[in-house]
Amino acid sequence: MSSFKGNALRGTFFLIFGLGWSVKYPLKYLSRKLNADNQASRWIEKLDILEGAAKAFLAVAGMLAEQFVPDGPHMGLYSGGTYSWEKLTNWQYTTMYLFYGLSGIVDVLSYSPLKLSLGLDRLILIAAACFGVGVGFLFCFHDYNNTALDQHLHSLLLIAIFGGALCALMEVFLRDHTILEFFRTSFFILQGSWFWQIGFVLSPPWGGPGWDQTDRGNFNFLTMCFFWHYAAALLVTAANSVFSYWYVVGQGSGMPGLDNHLCLLDSN
Amino acid sequence: MSSFKGNALRGTFFLIFGLGWSVKYPLKYLSRKLNADNQASRWIEKLDILEGAAKAFLAVAGMLAEQFVPDGPHMGLYSGGTYSWEKLTNWQYTTMYLFYGLSGIVDVLSYSPLKLSLGLDRLILIAAACFGVGVGFLFCFHDYNNTALDQHLHSLLLIAIFGGALCALMEVFLRDHTILEFFRTSFFILQGSWFWQIGFVLSPPWGGPGWDQTDRGNFNFLTMCFFWHYAAALLVTAANSVFSYWYVVGQGSGMPGLDNHLCLLDSN
Amino acid sequence: MSSFKGNALRGTFFLIFGLGWSVKYPLKYLSRKLNADNQASRWIEKLDILEGAAKAFLAVAGMLAEQFVPDGPHMGLYSGGTYSWEKLTNWQYTTMYLFYGLSGIVDVLSYSPLKLSLGLDRLILIAAACFGVGVGFLFCFHDYNNTALDQHLHSLLLIAIFGGALCALMEVFLRDHTILEFFRTSFFILQGSWFWQIGFVLSPPWGGPGWDQTDRGNFNFLTMCFFWHYAAALLVTAANSVFSYWYVVGQGSGMPGLDNHLCLLDSN
Amino acid sequence: MSSFKGNALRGTFFLIFGLGWSVKYPLKYLSRKLNADNQASRWIEKLDILEGAAKAFLAVAGMLAEQFVPDGPHMGLYSGGTYSWEKLTNWQYTTMYLFYGLSGIVDVLSYSPLKLSLGLDRLILIAAACFGVGVGFLFCFHDYNNTALDQHLHSLLLIAIFGGALCALMEVFLRDHTILEFFRTSFFILQGSWFWQIGFVLSPPWGGPGWDQTDRGNFNFLTMCFFWHYAAALLVTAANSVFSYWYVVGQGSGMPGLDNHLCLLDSN
Repeated sequence: MSSFKGNALRGTFFLIFGLGWSVKYPLKYLSRKLNADNQASRWIEKLDILEGAAKAFLAVAGMLAEQFVPDGPHMGLYSGGTYSWEKLTNWQYTTMYLFYGLSGIVDVLSYSPLKLSLGLDRLILIAAACFGVGVGFLFCFHDYNNTALDQHLHSLLLIAIFGGALCALMEVFLRDHTILEFFRTSFFILQGSWFWQIGFVLSPPWGGPGWDQTDRGNFNFLTMCFFWHYAAALLVTAANSVFSYWYVVGQGSGMPGLDNHLCLLDSN
Repeated sequence: MSSFKGNALRGTFFLIFGLGWSVKYPLKYLSRKLNADNQASRWIEKLDILEGAAKAFLAVAGMLAEQFVPDGPHMGLYSGGTYSWEKLTNWQYTTMYLFYGLSGIVDVLSYSPLKLSLGLDRLILIAAACFGVGVGFLFCFHDYNNTALDQHLHSLLLIAIFGGALCALMEVFLRDHTILEFFRTSFFILQGSWFWQIGFVLSPPWGGPGWDQTDRGNFNFLTMCFFWHYAAALLVTAANSVFSYWYVVGQGSGMPGLDNHLCLLDSN
Repeated sequence: MSSFKGNALRGTFFLIFGLGWSVKYPLKYLSRKLNADNQASRWIEKLDILEGAAKAFLAVAGMLAEQFVPDGPHMGLYSGGTYSWEKLTNWQYTTMYLFYGLSGIVDVLSYSPLKLSLGLDRLILIAAACFGVGVGFLFCFHDYNNTALDQHLHSLLLIAIFGGALCALMEVFLRDHTILEFFRTSFFILQGSWFWQIGFVLSPPWGGPGWDQTDRGNFNFLTMCFFWHYAAALLVTAANSVFSYWYVVGQGSGMPGLDNHLCLLDSN
Repeated sequence: MSSFKGNALRGTFFLIFGLGWSVKYPLKYLSRKLNADNQASRWIEKLDILEGAAKAFLAVAGMLAEQFVPDGPHMGLYSGGTYSWEKLTNWQYTTMYLFYGLSGIVDVLSYSPLKLSLGLDRLILIAAACFGVGVGFLFCFHDYNNTALDQHLHSLLLIAIFGGALCALMEVFLRDHTILEFFRTSFFILQGSWFWQIGFVLSPPWGGPGWDQTDRGNFNFLTMCFFWHYAAALLVTAANSVFSYWYVVGQGSGMPGLDNHLCLLDSN
């Protein structure tokens, strides 16, 4: 599944979380700032559990998809016939989803009614950082036998992954830090959109052989394109933050409280 | 526009901000220390807006210059005739200016009377850090088809860019930190002067073929030269700090308050 | 002693400390949280001294083993006959154990009745970080004349070593930080299990020539395998934390205090 | 002056400061802890000025030595006759001393009676960090046309330099941090002793051609040797700390206050 569909699936996975976070974190921030009633904060806690469950569920779905697509390894790791490893790329993406799944399970457990949270709630972010670095190195060693443009595309992806992992790592020490959440969200959106870009470049959905792997111009253009993706990801995250803000403030009865709210926010 | 004029333009862009900051930050620090009247602090806020506007304006000017110089791409990205990308170097510098422009717009918005600053004022520095890293990687992948000395010069530039970006990143967490501002300013001046140096080395304004690209002595000399530039940038930044200090203290009526001021500063 | 036995010995060394810490740190954390009586905390201090002594003792044992195995250097460093260095790999592992030994001695001294702890108790972690980086670089330069798969395996080991060293370095500034201890423990278990993996790959105990050093599939599989080891190390550390927690809570007479304890832990 | 004498001079330069600091910082720490009288703290301030002056003086001496030794460049940078740069290695070491000199001058100015310390006293450490990184990169690009063993030796030196620079950088934010001072001191001693080692390896004082530049065994041995140097540097720094401690405590009249002092230190 290194075809277009696989990359599209992975991209969608990251985009769902990136875009979801870009709405969730501003709402969380606002409900904390505006001394929201308990209902809202309970809502957000439920959202956290739901997010963990969704992460675990999507990770399992991803693992199954990687394993049981027609050209997948079907759980076979070593082929005794040809004395070679089977479909290692699919296994690597399975490992990537595995770390996500662990992160999702810890997510759910730390908010569960069992409350066995021996500091486990902080492990969410650790697990996220681990998977990030893990996946990063996966891709780093991923393309030994691939062509050059493929490797270049995944090196660029690595930047997004490490950026997100670094944010998650710093969030272990600085929890609920607005700017780190903003950064992490934008890096996840970047990962998602870049997976789609990889799909379009290496195996276009309308068929055809993909881009020329040896043309140096393609390398330079795609590097630049990566930063356009990032500019877009930053704009999307910023726009969602502003829209969430307007939505929450607009909910207040009438507009007289607006200035007060704004003053509260400014005095942050 | 990889000619002398292009490099001189880029160098001037960075020098304007570096030198401007080397005066602005000490004044800001002093007006905070000496409990200056509100007039001064309002002045400085206006200066911030002006700085953002200048950044956005100069970035747009830079983008237009990169695009519409006689040998520029004129907004054409892909040439259907030769099946190749057009003038990618100009497009890359356009992208660099784009990130600056975004940083400038956020700058202006965060101080605007609309006051829609949902933590947006911190985004200034984030955007600055992003563009920094972005530009850094741009140059990192920039010279695939260039000669070796060119690559060496841009690698050295990379050190200055990453230094500045690292400072901006740390300023997200430690705002108004005098030493980080000092560092960042010196790195910007270094970038500016190094762009000029690149212009002189690769395409001298008096014509001629530029320096010998294969002589190892040139490599060693230019590495050393980079550190001379940095020593000069440090001295210029320090000198401007001292001059700003003397100017502000000299404004006080007479000199009797001098010792008090100095004691205040020392007790910092 | 680059044979299976040597790698198994090194792996066991790291596993003992990793698994020991995975039990010790949760107990320490709980005894601090639950306001345990002085007996428990004195117990833990004695455990620290014991740990230091074990570290020093095992390091000396390791050094002796590396030097005096039948095919070891027997303290000879330079062979005058062949004008070449003797058994440098064994000497390098001896150096690795030397840094551990120093760390263990500082450990013991800082808790000794002499109490000459001029901040020396913080040196434990410094020494640990030093040895970590030291060993890291040792391996980095280790394989000049080895084959490629060997180098790849030690590069992966390097990730675990640097991870552990980074945690130890950060613990110098953030002492008794639960998450850093969790991380460091998992990295030590990873080192231990990876040494065993190296032994099995390069010199299987059932004889035979080891894996094919040129097959690219082996590279990709072992990279993935490294992350499976890490997932396992994380699970083992988490499981030991939970078991320690249950053990301590189960010791309380009856279960009525359980909810209180849990609330205490949650309010952390 | 890449001969033995030059390396010995550089090594002595670093050893003087490293060994000096290994005595100075524990004394400073103790005088702060034991609430020493003002006399002691004034003594230490004078020591700081003296240190800055010594740094500046030795740096100027080093620059003159690099320039005006018989086989030095005698201030000539470019030879018009051969169209090539003159004695660039000597110029590079001159640049290294230049950054030290600047650091020394800032040192003196920040404690001078003029008291023009607009935060300048923090610049000492910044300047130190700058020179460190600067020198690091100098050596990084230093050996383009040198043989391989030379490059390997300077890469190892780079580790010591970056280690020291990293400590100085962190001291900008965490001033008077005992552990960072301990680290920095040990890295400086390491630099000093490693310069001597380089001298002995590349140009032995008893004549002869230096070590075999192509023997892989030499590479491995010298890597290991570097860590022995570091273990020795750590031991020397620790020993000097302990001796300073005993000296200060021994100065107290009689020994009855010993336990109190120790308790004070332990409660740190």
